Amino acid sequence: MDRRHRRNPLHGPRRMFALPTPDQSGQYCIVLANTRNPLNIGAAARAMSNFGFDDLRLVQPFEPSFREARSAVGAAEILKSARVFGDLAAAVSDCSLVVGTTAGRGRELQHEMRPLGQAAGLLRRQAARGRVALLFGSEKRGLSNRDFSHCHLLLRIPTREEHGSMNLGQAVAVCLYELRRGGLRSAKAKPGEKMLPANAG
Amino acid sequence: MDRRHRRNPLHGPRRMFALPTPDQSGQYCIVLANTRNPLNIGAAARAMSNFGFDDLRLVQPFEPSFREARSAVGAAEILKSARVFGDLAAAVSDCSLVVGTTAGRGRELQHEMRPLGQAAGLLRRQAARGRVALLFGSEKRGLSNRDFSHCHLLLRIPTREEHGSMNLGQAVAVCLYELRRGGLRSAKAKPGEKMLPANAG
Repeated sequence: MDRRHRRNPLHGPRRMFALPTPDQSGQYCIVLANTRNPLNIGAAARAMSNFGFDDLRLVQPFEPSFREARSAVGAAEILKSARVFGDLAAAVSDCSLVVGTTAGRGRELQHEMRPLGQAAGLLRRQAARGRVALLFGSEKRGLSNRDFSHCHLLLRIPTREEHGSMNLGQAVAVCLYELRRGGLRSAKAKPGEKMLPANAG
Repeated sequence: MDRRHRRNPLHGPRRMFALPTPDQSGQYCIVLANTRNPLNIGAAARAMSNFGFDDLRLVQPFEPSFREARSAVGAAEILKSARVFGDLAAAVSDCSLVVGTTAGRGRELQHEMRPLGQAAGLLRRQAARGRVALLFGSEKRGLSNRDFSHCHLLLRIPTREEHGSMNLGQAVAVCLYELRRGGLRSAKAKPGEKMLPANAG
């Protein structure tokens, strides 16, 4: 850290802006099922990189060339190491908690459903014990009933009732932001692992 | 509400999933300065619609055809009514609080800077008294120093230090989600104004 940086009022005090990567950050995987638009895969990867997640798994992506998504600014490594699976069961086979994202309207689901803020607390606690999968369905149809059969829990992002359908990349960003914001309260800083605020680009 | 809807476990209890539009939701305007990609304007408009904001203002957008952005699923009305301004001063002239979003790295700014979670509380309190502008800069450069001169406060979204640059549409979604999540705790439901969780599409 140079002197100019140290004097910059934007960088202190650290407790406000520097956020450690939680110990369990490597315990999450983000699973995109049947995604059609490679730009959305890139956007999801970018948000993962912004918020410190690196395990991206794709179930039958529509477009095999997703690794070149131009929307993935700064997230090339995540796309490069992303794994592709033939079905959801294989993608989440090592996960002790599988959480689906959905609006759920018109469906007769028997799963427990939590709003994002509540679900995030559950996920963080479970991530201390085992691997957690966070699932996002296709742009048009979301997760299928067959996909739901692999889920232990469903979560929903609170939105306006008249417009519940979120852009996939934005939904991923909001979920990962909420998962990480808990770290602002609870995590302890480790050298070389900290979070700083973002700009938009 | 029909019987099938009432029985659906996804729809109850209301205190968990139904969120009112806060009384002050009309007090915010979202200002995009010098945005280059009309898809990002569309994505911002979609997030605004998801979270219940409707006042979109554009300062010198690079692409005049932004109103046809295909990314704005469900947000045509917001794009249609968006106002275009020749400079930022005109865009925020009716606002009593102007808040810029930035990473701020490498800049010598003298503004008060808050992480998003803290800033959202300030914004909500101020919105009870007057109009609040939330500013987002261009994809490549963010807000300029000249833009900052119009701001009373800056906010930053906590991200990984090594990758602070967020996609514009995702940054807007995360900020609006954070502004609205406070409503889960404090707002009271009014008939016909409620929030439901989203799916991703």
